[in-house]
Amino acid sequence: MKPITPFVHGLNDAAAQAWLAALRQAAPGLDIRFATEIAPAERDRVEVAIVANADPADLAAFPRLKWVQSLWAGVERILRDMPDDAVQIVRLVDPQLGETMAEAVLAWTLFLHRAMPVYGAQQARRVWQQHDLPTAAERRIGVLGLGHLGQKSAERLVRNGFDVLGWSRTARDVPGVTTFSGAEGLSRLAAQADIVVVLLPSTPLTRGLLDARFLAAMKPGASLINFARGDIVVRDDLLAALESRHVDHAVLDVFTTEPLPADDPLWDHRQITVLPHISAPTNRRTASAVVADNIEAYFATGRMPATVSRETGY
Amino acid sequence: MKPITPFVHGLNDAAAQAWLAALRQAAPGLDIRFATEIAPAERDRVEVAIVANADPADLAAFPRLKWVQSLWAGVERILRDMPDDAVQIVRLVDPQLGETMAEAVLAWTLFLHRAMPVYGAQQARRVWQQHDLPTAAERRIGVLGLGHLGQKSAERLVRNGFDVLGWSRTARDVPGVTTFSGAEGLSRLAAQADIVVVLLPSTPLTRGLLDARFLAAMKPGASLINFARGDIVVRDDLLAALESRHVDHAVLDVFTTEPLPADDPLWDHRQITVLPHISAPTNRRTASAVVADNIEAYFATGRMPATVSRETGY
Repeated sequence: MKPITPFVHGLNDAAAQAWLAALRQAAPGLDIRFATEIAPAERDRVEVAIVANADPADLAAFPRLKWVQSLWAGVERILRDMPDDAVQIVRLVDPQLGETMAEAVLAWTLFLHRAMPVYGAQQARRVWQQHDLPTAAERRIGVLGLGHLGQKSAERLVRNGFDVLGWSRTARDVPGVTTFSGAEGLSRLAAQADIVVVLLPSTPLTRGLLDARFLAAMKPGASLINFARGDIVVRDDLLAALESRHVDHAVLDVFTTEPLPADDPLWDHRQITVLPHISAPTNRRTASAVVADNIEAYFATGRMPATVSRETGY
Repeated sequence: MKPITPFVHGLNDAAAQAWLAALRQAAPGLDIRFATEIAPAERDRVEVAIVANADPADLAAFPRLKWVQSLWAGVERILRDMPDDAVQIVRLVDPQLGETMAEAVLAWTLFLHRAMPVYGAQQARRVWQQHDLPTAAERRIGVLGLGHLGQKSAERLVRNGFDVLGWSRTARDVPGVTTFSGAEGLSRLAAQADIVVVLLPSTPLTRGLLDARFLAAMKPGASLINFARGDIVVRDDLLAALESRHVDHAVLDVFTTEPLPADDPLWDHRQITVLPHISAPTNRRTASAVVADNIEAYFATGRMPATVSRETGY
């Protein structure tokens, strides 16, 4: 008998159906169903659930649940919703996600490096003016966060000729990247980078980390890309740094409230590029394959994949 | 005695002074001067001149001129201005120029691939909407022109995961690239590419090559990037293809008249990104070193660098 595996989600109907179909196709050894389609008598056979923006009340229906597999890489919401230690949490670690994020980091780094916001503003004013172009090797990019996504992104920037710095909470080595760690390392990176790319998880230690002090430590005229979580950057401090032109431009893909409300003044700030959380969308096909492997391997061997630490949040 | 080498240019004062300084620094074995600073009695000792937007009348002052070294890669203007076979023309072939162009091709390919024009327009209307993202491998990029710049650009796209097609007048092999040649090959490439990148020289054979027929052969909804010369694309045919949405977007860095006149309607066409000829600016430092090597080697060995064919135009 195939293990019953509930899919517990807060997605809209179309997205939920598409995910269910992809998950079933990837995992023929599992009996994957919407949580609502599992009869009360079957519920205590459930050991693993697949979750996407799940309501924790829906998970409480499974008394013998051992772990949940998230469809997303960021799990700060599940950690908040499920403070109970009894259920372990597994993040999505999909190699394709790393490639997609590395591509986004490269794309918007080139957007800033090649002065696309400047040339866009010039087009609107019908201005023909050329600006000096440093080589990629003359441009320092500072990547904050050297987990899977950060490492892949840093490597991609190196391969495309940029001078890359990296920062993580605890020291790490990444080939071709000058790495920093700790509070003092963060200031040193800030002082050198022309473009800072935020790829940190949202944890108690990173929320509000990029505040007035960090921004003041940045090189005058540098720019910021936030592809991680909105709450890592202190919004009012960033607005002040943009206003004084100490920070030249910000590319923001993430916000404390998403969708960004239509009346939010960020939308028409000339120094801010607003993106609707699109830097690294989960690829349904590849993510479903990773999820299927994790859960099928667990039922075959009894071994759980690497789980999220409640202390560090990732 | 160092060979007298005139620098014959139509640049503004600041640019001319910066070039002269860079050229002198790179070529200590040459006596490089502005053409106007060469006395009449010295003129018949000149065998080589360095040219940048030169007036041909200024070159006529040197009766024994054998060849000219252009500071630019594109030489269609010199060819038109100097129809006389007696003087050979050497284009700038600078490896840094290839890197800069490859970077521009990657940057604006990613601009289209990651739907930056779409998200930019959404930001202006305060719209939060995500669009499906194909992987780079699912995106076919067709590079027209496989000279130094085209090859470097195609290779860079391959290294960043894109599916790359290439076209040249005569058949060429480029590792990792599906290549086409001839008129029939051009239609086949057009039918398959999601983004067409133009890197052809402007020659009698390429002027007007991208006309209504080529555009109609393109995949519906594909986009165009022209980083070569304005006269290769038939302007009115492109405008019609954009109007019908058969072509989705055009990134134009080059125009038949430059600077693009302030009253040109291209400036505020929503499907056109206008750039002020900035895809691959010549790097003064690296270009001066190439020019110095070419000329010093000629005086040391009597061997001229590869010259431009008046038949093909490159």
